[in-house]
Amino acid sequence: MDLTCRPVCFKMAYPGALKRLVEVLCRFPGIGPKSAQRLAFFILGCSREEVVAIARAMVEAKDKLDYCQICGSLSESGLCPYCSDTGRDQSLLCVIQEPRDVLVIERTGQYRGLYHVLHGVLSPLDGIGPDELHIDQLVRRIMEEKISEVIIATNPNVEGDATAGYLARMLKSHRVRVTRIAFGLPVGGDLEYADDLTLSRALDGRREM
Amino acid sequence: MDLTCRPVCFKMAYPGALKRLVEVLCRFPGIGPKSAQRLAFFILGCSREEVVAIARAMVEAKDKLDYCQICGSLSESGLCPYCSDTGRDQSLLCVIQEPRDVLVIERTGQYRGLYHVLHGVLSPLDGIGPDELHIDQLVRRIMEEKISEVIIATNPNVEGDATAGYLARMLKSHRVRVTRIAFGLPVGGDLEYADDLTLSRALDGRREM
Repeated sequence: MDLTCRPVCFKMAYPGALKRLVEVLCRFPGIGPKSAQRLAFFILGCSREEVVAIARAMVEAKDKLDYCQICGSLSESGLCPYCSDTGRDQSLLCVIQEPRDVLVIERTGQYRGLYHVLHGVLSPLDGIGPDELHIDQLVRRIMEEKISEVIIATNPNVEGDATAGYLARMLKSHRVRVTRIAFGLPVGGDLEYADDLTLSRALDGRREM
Repeated sequence: MDLTCRPVCFKMAYPGALKRLVEVLCRFPGIGPKSAQRLAFFILGCSREEVVAIARAMVEAKDKLDYCQICGSLSESGLCPYCSDTGRDQSLLCVIQEPRDVLVIERTGQYRGLYHVLHGVLSPLDGIGPDELHIDQLVRRIMEEKISEVIIATNPNVEGDATAGYLARMLKSHRVRVTRIAFGLPVGGDLEYADDLTLSRALDGRREM
């Protein structure tokens, strides 16, 4: 990840250590110069012990966490809790883009199968083809494990859809059911505020009542 | 600053080190559980060197920065750059709530006087009275230094106004002019969108053209 690209202008006389801290915080996603300054002053307002605890939590997370050898999601030991949990449904495999998506799906409390993290999506313009993703490992798992259904849960955008289509075509030759999570109106939403694409997908995906 | 009060619920099976990191990041102002998770995954995506650099910038800032012995703003040495700059107007003193407000006023490029940081505002409900603020030091500076005007730039809210009123009454016995920064319509704003209080303050503060 690039920690040097975003230029940050500070015309005012920040003390050096504060300037460095603000510049470092600016590189976090979604944190602009103003938020970074706010975070920096929060850090300065903490006790030294608290600041050390924050710093240590970052380095420890980086040191302790690695990717699961089987599914590629985050794990503190060689295997993630999902792959090592024999109580989960070993016939269901949910394919996702990023390790964080595991947590999003787990939060529903509804899915009890296994995961496979692609670590990205097909994006020819960025030079990301099938070889850059964990697709070989996916195919190997489908051949070796007793998986009956592969649920593709890549994001509902151009790259996510293209990747889902690619996987569906590729897995046709294997004896697995390949499904895609449903797209439509978000629960609690309002027809009036739905965009055209979402609405047309909601119509396409209509079901018998 | 309290690093323990905000309860954060994580029902899902976060690996321990990730959970600790997300919990720590949640305590930053303006960072909720979702943003904290996003930041945590950003950190995990950085190289170890980059994570150590971020952690070090935090601890270094805390270690190196202290408050100026005279004005109470942030400083890397005993005196801040404003107090040690003899080229600044020594007769003007701007009173502000927090050290970060120095940077906000410096950004205008218009003010060339000195600062005094109160480190808070009067707030009886929170148990913050005059003794909890750097008001004694302010009075001492006004008596010892050659200050002719005190500009009170506390925030335009109940506590800020009350503090400004308190200071104005208290400084009446000293031979200084006490002023308050102007409140009114923000530049580039629109009458239609101004709230009633701002508009009535803009009317109160009207000036001859």
